[in-house]
Amino acid sequence: MTSTLTRAETWSLLTLSACCVGIIVNTFQGDGEPLIASLAFSGIAFSFTFSLIRWLGHTFMKANLKGRDMSKLKKVEIPENMGAVCAVVYLLVIIVFIPFPFYKDIVAATSGGGNREFVVEHQQVDTGRILHKFPHNKLASYLSAILSLQSVVLLGIGDDLFDIRWRHKLFIPAFAAIPMLVVYFVDYGVTNVVVPVQLEPYLGNMVDLGWLYYAYMAAVAIFCPNSINILAGINGIEVSQSIVVGFLLLANDILSLWAAPSSPTPHPATDPHLFSIYLLLPFLGVSMALWWHNWYPAKVFVGDTYCYFAGMVFAIVGILGHFSKTLLLLLIPQIANFIYSAPQLFRLIPCPRHRLPRFNTRSGLLEPSVTQWPRPPSRPVAWMLDLLANFPLPMLKLEKNSKGEIIESTNLTILNLWLVWFGPRREDRLAIELLAMQATCGIIGLFVRHKLALLVFREDNRA
Amino acid sequence: MTSTLTRAETWSLLTLSACCVGIIVNTFQGDGEPLIASLAFSGIAFSFTFSLIRWLGHTFMKANLKGRDMSKLKKVEIPENMGAVCAVVYLLVIIVFIPFPFYKDIVAATSGGGNREFVVEHQQVDTGRILHKFPHNKLASYLSAILSLQSVVLLGIGDDLFDIRWRHKLFIPAFAAIPMLVVYFVDYGVTNVVVPVQLEPYLGNMVDLGWLYYAYMAAVAIFCPNSINILAGINGIEVSQSIVVGFLLLANDILSLWAAPSSPTPHPATDPHLFSIYLLLPFLGVSMALWWHNWYPAKVFVGDTYCYFAGMVFAIVGILGHFSKTLLLLLIPQIANFIYSAPQLFRLIPCPRHRLPRFNTRSGLLEPSVTQWPRPPSRPVAWMLDLLANFPLPMLKLEKNSKGEIIESTNLTILNLWLVWFGPRREDRLAIELLAMQATCGIIGLFVRHKLALLVFREDNRA
Repeated sequence: MTSTLTRAETWSLLTLSACCVGIIVNTFQGDGEPLIASLAFSGIAFSFTFSLIRWLGHTFMKANLKGRDMSKLKKVEIPENMGAVCAVVYLLVIIVFIPFPFYKDIVAATSGGGNREFVVEHQQVDTGRILHKFPHNKLASYLSAILSLQSVVLLGIGDDLFDIRWRHKLFIPAFAAIPMLVVYFVDYGVTNVVVPVQLEPYLGNMVDLGWLYYAYMAAVAIFCPNSINILAGINGIEVSQSIVVGFLLLANDILSLWAAPSSPTPHPATDPHLFSIYLLLPFLGVSMALWWHNWYPAKVFVGDTYCYFAGMVFAIVGILGHFSKTLLLLLIPQIANFIYSAPQLFRLIPCPRHRLPRFNTRSGLLEPSVTQWPRPPSRPVAWMLDLLANFPLPMLKLEKNSKGEIIESTNLTILNLWLVWFGPRREDRLAIELLAMQATCGIIGLFVRHKLALLVFREDNRA
Repeated sequence: MTSTLTRAETWSLLTLSACCVGIIVNTFQGDGEPLIASLAFSGIAFSFTFSLIRWLGHTFMKANLKGRDMSKLKKVEIPENMGAVCAVVYLLVIIVFIPFPFYKDIVAATSGGGNREFVVEHQQVDTGRILHKFPHNKLASYLSAILSLQSVVLLGIGDDLFDIRWRHKLFIPAFAAIPMLVVYFVDYGVTNVVVPVQLEPYLGNMVDLGWLYYAYMAAVAIFCPNSINILAGINGIEVSQSIVVGFLLLANDILSLWAAPSSPTPHPATDPHLFSIYLLLPFLGVSMALWWHNWYPAKVFVGDTYCYFAGMVFAIVGILGHFSKTLLLLLIPQIANFIYSAPQLFRLIPCPRHRLPRFNTRSGLLEPSVTQWPRPPSRPVAWMLDLLANFPLPMLKLEKNSKGEIIESTNLTILNLWLVWFGPRREDRLAIELLAMQATCGIIGLFVRHKLALLVFREDNRA
């Protein structure tokens, strides 16, 4: 991998950045237009990340952050953990972006100058003049989102450096979610959930889940990053699935905003969706820059940091945007992969260090990788495996010895399952097919959310 | 270095932690008592950091985070960058601590349940009932402090990994200060400064510095971390100077709170000082745990991360607590060291990679280290150096060749200067003497601040 940009790249990125800066400067003329500014910031984030990944390749290799691509004929070493670059650029961009969503409020408030809480005198409240309130709670939730993201990046880098064990790793996002949960506790404390129509006679309109709601949020925060991290192992799959999910969430936001009634007082569901867009656009910007370098044949690896970071963006957007159910609907392939992987993750079935598909050096194609059974499985496990292997659509492949004992079975990831079902294929084709599947599932999910939700819930946010 | 705790250590730390947990649980009985809780959290932070530093030594060595102690006869390798452990524990603790300063407000607000902004109806405001307002602006400033600290840790780790060049390093804290400055801009926007009495006829009571004030805050944020980072190089000096400064700042807070008039409505200067104490106590906790391992003869190194982190704690406390001038008063040795180092930092005089004092293997004492002049300095520089070397109290030592040209000069740090003045001495004695000097300067600074400030300013915060 070269460490410089080509002339064409330099000029394209410079032009893009210049346009974006121009747009941002322009937004100051009107009302701040945070949406437009966010789009422009994403363009800048893309250019920055693209260039930095190229420039820092050698530096990463020198600091021993490198890995070998096992699914290639020539197993060259390439830089590892480039997701950290993405994440740092992303954090910088959303921090600099903070004033934009509050531009109107700042202008309204600073006409009085000084501390913005104390602009309006008490008399003015009494005499009925409109009290301008700076939306500090929005600011606090935005800040808590950034804090949680930064925490996950910090812990992810720790993981990439020290190679923490699987069982400990699992809880890294839980630690990183603490800032968000604490601020949620201090700031909102809403722990009510709407009850489906069918259950209303038994539970009433709303149920207050209390601390269970925090446990639920923590679970979402743990699940999202880890689910991206275990659907990994072939070039580009981590970034591209994140990009697909990112676009699906964006589509969900746009659908929700589109349908919201336009009234002078903004609908309460509008703000969280805007907030979600502000977080997603720059995420897509940095991810696409990484994708460019990580797609087959990969020139850099993304590292665990990226997976945690991407998953945490989704978790935060879902939780603070109050649409975590929709989020889970869009992560169905990840959920399927997690459930399918569970027997290996919880050691019912032996789990090797890496479960990525095996590269066949003769055909150049990927095949399902297998795990060896040091001793044959116990009766019930063997029976279960046999059953799964003999489904009309086999759920795994087994290898038996002459005594009929299981000696190896395919690793339980949907990447391997796909190869079991459809046969060996090249790395990029496997990735494309899985992404198409992810996109299809997601579009069906959006349809369910926006067309069928009223069958279960009394009213939509949009109503 | 062993990687386990001794039995005595285990029991002491466990007892300390248990007491602290008990205290924290107890604070829920009353009004939350954030000060007591903060003290207890600091105890827990100490125990955690102490144990983690011990346990993680080998892991750090394996990940190639290690360095050689150059000022010892046996130059063994010991773990490097242990400050990162400190910083991560610190961040975790202050994040978990967030609800405590707001405990009263949470209790007051949640009696209504649901979103705390909307508890009070408009009628109640009009009819004169007291409007409880959750102090979102305090929360935002607390969050921005954590964000800036986390950013500096992230960038510090990047620096420790990639060994960034001096000139680039200088600006790491500037990037990390962005979150704080952005939130300051969004949230307060106070850019007025009080004018000294002597200048009032010309400038009026207050001067609005506008964007210059942001530049000033950025400068403080750049200065503090870097000033700790360049007063370094002997065992324990980075941590112990930070501990001394931390205690001085704490004393300043206590003096300010002590003198504040006790009235039912808290004085506006009370909150920032409490805020400062909440940030300083756990900082002292983690620092003392690190000090234990880093003091002569060091068993671990602290790394740049610690210096940035410590300096940033000071900068944030000073800026958000609105006493940055007092802060600078307490950093006089660091300021002196910076000014004294400037000719080398800005390359008027050659600057080697490390400027720590030289270890004399025969005597076992430290001596001033020197920098070689590849070619003799220009006339004016040579004249200047000669002048400084021939002061009654010589400011450096020169070595000349037979032609009278300068061929080497001592490195310009106050550590070397101390050795020039008082002769060679053992590493720990040098550290202790410098710390005594720092403490003395600081106590004089506090006296100036609390006794003499009224000569220059019309009124004290405390008045």
